[in-house]
Amino acid sequence: MKIDFERAVELLKEKNNFLVLTHANPDGDTIGGGLALVYALRKAGKRARLINNDEIPQKYSYLFENLQEDDFCEEFIVSVDVAEKKLLGSELTEKYGDKVDLAIDHHSSSKLFAKETYTETDSASACEVVYLLIKAMGVEINKDIANCLFTGCSTDTGCFKYANVTARTHLIAAELISAGAENGKINAKMFDSKTKSSIMLEKMCLNRLKFFADGKVALITVTKEMFEETGAVKSDLDIIKPLTRQIEGVKIGVTIKYEGNAIGVSIRSNEDYDASEICKHFGGGGHIRAAGCEFREPIEEVEKKVISYILENVI
Amino acid sequence: MKIDFERAVELLKEKNNFLVLTHANPDGDTIGGGLALVYALRKAGKRARLINNDEIPQKYSYLFENLQEDDFCEEFIVSVDVAEKKLLGSELTEKYGDKVDLAIDHHSSSKLFAKETYTETDSASACEVVYLLIKAMGVEINKDIANCLFTGCSTDTGCFKYANVTARTHLIAAELISAGAENGKINAKMFDSKTKSSIMLEKMCLNRLKFFADGKVALITVTKEMFEETGAVKSDLDIIKPLTRQIEGVKIGVTIKYEGNAIGVSIRSNEDYDASEICKHFGGGGHIRAAGCEFREPIEEVEKKVISYILENVI
Repeated sequence: MKIDFERAVELLKEKNNFLVLTHANPDGDTIGGGLALVYALRKAGKRARLINNDEIPQKYSYLFENLQEDDFCEEFIVSVDVAEKKLLGSELTEKYGDKVDLAIDHHSSSKLFAKETYTETDSASACEVVYLLIKAMGVEINKDIANCLFTGCSTDTGCFKYANVTARTHLIAAELISAGAENGKINAKMFDSKTKSSIMLEKMCLNRLKFFADGKVALITVTKEMFEETGAVKSDLDIIKPLTRQIEGVKIGVTIKYEGNAIGVSIRSNEDYDASEICKHFGGGGHIRAAGCEFREPIEEVEKKVISYILENVI
Repeated sequence: MKIDFERAVELLKEKNNFLVLTHANPDGDTIGGGLALVYALRKAGKRARLINNDEIPQKYSYLFENLQEDDFCEEFIVSVDVAEKKLLGSELTEKYGDKVDLAIDHHSSSKLFAKETYTETDSASACEVVYLLIKAMGVEINKDIANCLFTGCSTDTGCFKYANVTARTHLIAAELISAGAENGKINAKMFDSKTKSSIMLEKMCLNRLKFFADGKVALITVTKEMFEETGAVKSDLDIIKPLTRQIEGVKIGVTIKYEGNAIGVSIRSNEDYDASEICKHFGGGGHIRAAGCEFREPIEEVEKKVISYILENVI
């Protein structure tokens, strides 16, 4: 059931012993939003802890420096930035998939899997929504909370670059910086910190870039061998995914990548095309300009399927 | 002579028939700030026009769509984002170098070459300063002005990424968006629009990347032949210049590039090093984290000189 802002604030103020869940393959928005909520709930005198299906990438470790462990029996389960049950990841889906009390989200593809869902689809990040909720709870934003929320606001918008950024996004960024967010350091870590492996991976991807439909569709495929050869890790793909869309004339950018037990597909689109619609066709979802889906078949097959579908039905 | 904010506003309000000058090799900040000032002065019932030593790169043409030509005899000369006389470019330096009445700037290397200079060295862009001046003149920011100022605020900060971005920068961005700035479109044009030639150039640069001092110094050299082979143009270098600093462990990133009649050197630094100090040694200048200098000798010689100086005296 969808609920309004007041009801979401009421739940956060009334309940206690919170378990906060992020989505699988956690990014800056789900981690930043989830952890900010934990810090804020504790500041409001409650108990709260964060759990994730997958390991938190090393680059986000600065957010956890001041986090004290706490173990208690959970009473109220909140998810942040999770559009549907299965995106919690296999373990968390099994354990908590049907038990989420409140989902805080901003995806247009949100499946309302929780008992109550507060979603703002015109919000550039889940962290923007969490910011408003924390303020409405009457909790003062301290440096820890500010760093968490700034990380999500910045990473989910390509550092304030994407078209979903509104005046409100910038106002919130300003308030977070005033509250102590280390914007320069965070952005340098998130956007200007390429490992040598990721630079090698990028070089390889540029060498293997393919175009279709008169350059309107661009494809990068990242195979298992490319990871092995460069020593790059999964989070290095964050730099690769936006690459295709950045090329002049490209309307739909497709990145297909080896992800261990599955093949992940990231689609980025420009203006006239809806990435989330394309991904929905393959059982995925996301935002209008950035979406994803998953396959369990050989990477060459996935390439053929996705590209043929786009060429025949979309472009 | 340095003047205060009130005096700068007074000059803009009192004078008429403005000639506004940008710096040579114009970027988004000098163009956006200069043109915003022209639009604002005209809105205040004055005559004003912009002139540049070098051609405006095509990618900024959207800012000029609503600009009417105006020819009149100039009475008051203002420069925007110009730190010293020679940066006006050879022709403009000769013609106006000693005649600038008011310099509006934000460089720490500002040489106070104008009769009066208003400079805010802690401002992330010249456009931030121009925004405050326009507001104080009592001119309402319309869409044209907002697009110009947003372009400068965004391009001079790597899309709000760099450490010089303050809460004020984001507040101004929020106000500009509210006043009609097309942030999504502008950022896509500035940061997500790589030509195929520039992608080829990037690939080549990554292939030729060199490291010194245990990876603390990175060097990219862009030769005449690389431009010829890829068909890339000068403004494609905007994507290349930040590359070196983005690599993990790199403290000083050096990009040396063929620029027709000169060899340009761009230095980007992290935390502990001052790029502007290094460039000053070679007669250049700029900001603490991003600066430049120029040579007129073979590119291999420039490489040797700059790298030896850094290895022996800086790192």
